[in-house]
Formats: sequence, C-alpha cells, structure tokens
Amino acid sequence: MAGNPIRFGIVGCAEIARKVARAINSAPNSTVSAVASRSLDKALNFAAVNGLPDTVKVYGGYDQILDDPCVDAVYMPLPTSLHQRWAILAAEKKKHILLEKPTALDVEELDKILDACESNGVQFMDGSMWLHHPRTAKMKEIISDTKLFGHVNYIHSTSTTSGTKQFLEENIRVKPDLDALGALGDLAWYCIGALLWAKDYKLPTQVHALPDVTKNSAGVILSCTASLQWGKSSNETFATIHCSFLSHTSMDIAISGACGSLNVYDFIIPYQETSASFEFTSGAKFAELHIGWNTRPEEVEVVNELPQEALMVAEFARLVGAIKTTGSRPDSKWPQISRKTQLVMDAVKKSIDSDCKPVYL
Amino acid sequence: MAGNPIRFGIVGCAEIARKVARAINSAPNSTVSAVASRSLDKALNFAAVNGLPDTVKVYGGYDQILDDPCVDAVYMPLPTSLHQRWAILAAEKKKHILLEKPTALDVEELDKILDACESNGVQFMDGSMWLHHPRTAKMKEIISDTKLFGHVNYIHSTSTTSGTKQFLEENIRVKPDLDALGALGDLAWYCIGALLWAKDYKLPTQVHALPDVTKNSAGVILSCTASLQWGKSSNETFATIHCSFLSHTSMDIAISGACGSLNVYDFIIPYQETSASFEFTSGAKFAELHIGWNTRPEEVEVVNELPQEALMVAEFARLVGAIKTTGSRPDSKWPQISRKTQLVMDAVKKSIDSDCKPVYL
Repeated sequence: MAGNPIRFGIVGCAEIARKVARAINSAPNSTVSAVASRSLDKALNFAAVNGLPDTVKVYGGYDQILDDPCVDAVYMPLPTSLHQRWAILAAEKKKHILLEKPTALDVEELDKILDACESNGVQFMDGSMWLHHPRTAKMKEIISDTKLFGHVNYIHSTSTTSGTKQFLEENIRVKPDLDALGALGDLAWYCIGALLWAKDYKLPTQVHALPDVTKNSAGVILSCTASLQWGKSSNETFATIHCSFLSHTSMDIAISGACGSLNVYDFIIPYQETSASFEFTSGAKFAELHIGWNTRPEEVEVVNELPQEALMVAEFARLVGAIKTTGSRPDSKWPQISRKTQLVMDAVKKSIDSDCKPVYL
Repeated sequence: MAGNPIRFGIVGCAEIARKVARAINSAPNSTVSAVASRSLDKALNFAAVNGLPDTVKVYGGYDQILDDPCVDAVYMPLPTSLHQRWAILAAEKKKHILLEKPTALDVEELDKILDACESNGVQFMDGSMWLHHPRTAKMKEIISDTKLFGHVNYIHSTSTTSGTKQFLEENIRVKPDLDALGALGDLAWYCIGALLWAKDYKLPTQVHALPDVTKNSAGVILSCTASLQWGKSSNETFATIHCSFLSHTSMDIAISGACGSLNVYDFIIPYQETSASFEFTSGAKFAELHIGWNTRPEEVEVVNELPQEALMVAEFARLVGAIKTTGSRPDSKWPQISRKTQLVMDAVKKSIDSDCKPVYL
C-alpha cells in the first residue's frame, strides 16, 4: 500500500480540514492530492498555510475536484446543509467519501447519500475521530468484561464548548441555513455516538428531550439535554446526554456498571496527541467504619503511535484500498454507525420539536 | 468548651452510628455519654465493640435515654419511618437533634419535627457530613467566582452503590415499612443536597423524574433519575441526578459553568480521611489545529485536620453550646437546608408517582 496511497481531495477548506489534511499526509496509506474551495484564492491560501506541496492541485470550485480522475476519495467538511448535494455528486463520480459530522440534516438525507454510495460502490465513513483511537478499543474491552464491570446500567455523556460572542453570532454552527442542528448536530453527535458505541450499536427504544432547550433567535439549538432508554426492564440501560455552546469545554463519558465504573474526560479530543487515558474502578467498597474507600480509580493510559485522526484516515484508506485492489464491496460497518447516530439525533430533534414528548424508536 | 463538652446520646445502634460515635469522641467539644438500642444486649454490644468507656450509660430502649438529664443532644440514625415519633419526643425532652438523612418520609413529617425543635428551643441538623468538609467550602469559593467559573449552567450528580443480594433483600433501605424512600432517600438526598448547595439553596422551579425508575417487588425505589430546572430562561441552571442501589459506587458532582468546570468523584465519602481533592478547569481551549488542549484539569487538594463527620459534630456541638451558655435561639441555617432538600426529594417522589409528570415548586 505504501507505494500506492489513496489520493484524497479535500472538498471545502473549513478549519477542521487543516487537521485532517495533516492526518491524511501522516497516515501511511494516504496523501492529499487536491484541494477545493468555493474560491480559488481560499484554496490557494489553504494549500500555502498548510504547507501542501506544489504537486497538490488546487480548485476554485467543488465540481472540478470531483471530476479529477486522480482523486480516489474526498474528505468533505462542508456545512451540513450542503452534504446531500455534494456527497451524492461525489458518490456518482465514484469518489469514496469521508464526510464530516453531522452527516446530514436528517436520516432521510443521509439515506440518500448512503444509497448513492451503495449504488456506486464507494466507501462511506463519517469524521468521528475518537472511535479510531486505541483508547476507545481499550475502554470497550473493559466495559464488555461482565465480571469486572457488570451490566452497563447508566451512561452520562456531555459535549460542551463555550462559544465566544463572535462564534455565537457568526459561526456556521449557529446558522439555520448552514448547520441547522446547532449544538445537537455539532456536539451531541459525539454523545449519541458514545452511547451507541457503549451499547454495541443497539438502538434505544425511547428518546426524550429534557425541558432545558436553549435556541438562538433564529431557532438554532445552542444547548440541550436528553435521556435515552433501552427497554423497559431494570435489566436495560438508561442514559443522559448534555450538549451546549454556552458552557466551558467538556467531553465526558461516565459509564456505570453493576460492579465497575469508567470515566473519560477528553473522549472527543484527547488532552494530548500521543497518549490518552481514562479512569476505571471496579469493586469499590468503603473502608471499615465507612471512613474512606478500599480503592481509588485507576488511570489507564493508552499510547497511540498516530493521532486518532490519522488512524481514522488510515482505516478509511485501508477500506478504499481493498475496494480498489480486490474489487470488494464497501464495508458496511461505518455507514451503519453513522446512520444509527443520525437516527437517534433525529429522535432528539423530534422530541425537542414536540415539546419534549418521548419519541419511540 | 473543652471542659464542658456537649454530651451525646446515641439513639439506635445502626452501622453508621459506629462512625459517628467515633466522630463525637474525636470532636473537641463533644462526648458520647449514653447509648440506646431496642435491646440492652445490642446496646451493650455496641458499647463494647466501639470501645466506649464504662462511664457511658447503656439503655435498652429509646425512652430512657431521652429522659437522661445528662444527655444534651441525640444522634439519631433510626430508620426513616421512626424519625417523626422519636425526633419529636427528643425535642420535647429538650434534646438537641442530629438526625440521620433522609430526615423524614416527607416534608409534612419533617415540618412536625422542625416545629417541635423550634418550640422547644433545640438545635436541629441532619447528618449530611460532606457539607462540613473544608473541600466543600473551597469548591463553593471556586464556583462562585464569576470571572473564573462564570454562570453555573448545568450540574450533574450521581450517588450509586451496588447492593449485594443480601442488601437488596434484607436491608432496611429497601423495606417499605422502614425506609420507604429507598435509593431516593438514602442516595439522592446527597445529589439533591449538592444541587441546592451549588445554587445557594435557591429551590428549582421544576422537577421531573425520568422514565427509568426501578422498584423492588414491595414498591421501594432501587434506582431513579431526575432533572431539575431553575427558571425558564437560558440564564438559569439545569441539572440531572441519578441514584441507584444497582450500580457500582459513585458519588460525583460535575458542575459546568460558562468558563470553568469542576468535578468531584468522592463528594459524599472522600477516598481518604485526612485530605480530599477535586478537579477544576478554567479557560480550556484547543491547541492549534485542535490536536490537544491548552490545559488539563487541575487537582485541588484540601487537607482536613478532623474527618468530615467530626467537623459536622463539632459544628453541631458549637451551636448547642451557644444555646446552652448564652440562651440563644437555635441556628436556622441547618434546618432550612434539610427542609429544602426534603422538599425537592418530595417533588421527585411525586413526579415518580405521577408517571414522570413535571412537578412545579
């Protein structure tokens, strides 16, 4: 593969594209071969600022990059409202698609994108980087250990970031015509993804927005909380999520099992690039007379040789490479994960829109 | 004070009484002078096991200890259903009362107890030890700093403990005739207390049980989740709490401010007796390219010279001492805190009993 890297076109020069461009060039099986923005100047500037070599083609428009036969795959960090149009066109042009989250405005839109990928035989994956960090696999191993951790009873996940005045007025994430889902799409995507990940992608049966929804004057969600329930019996799982553009940075998952607990505080973007940790406790009891604990949370550290975004790109490029070299079908795991995440996000949105009535899946 | 310690009678030899007996004897202004159980044998055994000196009087019944003129104050760790009867009688016998939580089965009962304390001029305090730890004051200082922390937007608190089979079958905390509030009374008491503490004891306007309530066959709550809302505007605070006898030990408070966050994982019983810590982060931003954070949570450690339960006893004994020596009125702060906690707990209960309908306060 090293001699035949997957050639990426970057469709849209959003801030996040800088991080992913670097990841594409640091993954062992991929390379940036073209960049497109709505204007040529923006694309040229992106190439210059990010030190991309002169061999990288620069386009002032998205159509041209999709017509470039030297582009195998696209990374697409466009505003959500543009995903359907450009992702479908990319699929039709036989470009494999790494699409930023949220993948679409709703699951109907996403289904059109996924159908286009399916019928054109191209790989789809969304840009949830954290799923590719080896820490995530290690956490999964622990919460799946029924003896050590027990049944997962309760999960709480948050994703918050304190938007500046400028962000709250101008950023695409608060504009109804660009990222109409606001904090739900940008932040709760991760929390919902974390719950589904913890539940082995079993869908909740009931989703319930809580009454603290905050919207801006244009009706875009700035902050919300929701509960998710799997089944009705006490043997199932309950979860709460909270996302906000109005609160200090947090990205937590707290998983509460029958005999263990796991906490991670930087699950979306680890504190540092080269290693990440989480806290795990099992069998905690109180000391004699209840004057302390018999144990403290253990910090489990996981070293990663490549940053999680490069691991994501490498996994995507591996799947694309397999399709290119063996003619195999695209892998269905990643599009299914995206679709379930979008489906649950839709349910939260629907509950918000119906005055917090429960939505059954 | 050292020469004239407040003389405690322990009314009920529950397991927790061992911890508090030790605290009473280690606080500088109090001493255990009598112990009562339903049977003399139990009381004698308690005195022996806990190394109480022969000067401590031992009673096989609660009436006698309340008639002992050498008892200034009682510590009462009886099952909740017995609180009303014995706490009122204690107040009538002019005994100051340190009452275990939950203080009563509902606020009507508690009001009768508080009225009895008021009309008999005796001090009331509930057994929430954590409020007396110096860490709690330090946390309060930080979350009150509007520049460092900003407005408190969201709070999440949990209190869980994994009951053994025996606990779930036999413990008084799951018996409808003894502690009918189950996990709500035993565990959520702390979470509700934490929210009220963080909100300077301003009551929420809306309380909402979430649909994951689990009860045992006798109808006692084993696990539940609730949301609490202060006001309707985005300038107010939203909170979620979760309590359970079915999940591994946790006792967390996560407070999310506009520009800071605070996390504590052992707020009810600190990991160790002599110091306790919490995590605090302010102004967290992502590093260039969003490949890490500019800061990590700071661990703030607070050393305590006495265990929190001894600090609780010392504060209670100080108030009792002031009443005894100066004839002052009982302090109203602590009964008010108990009453608000009970009031919110009642609201959660009411919401659970009405199929999760919101309860307005």
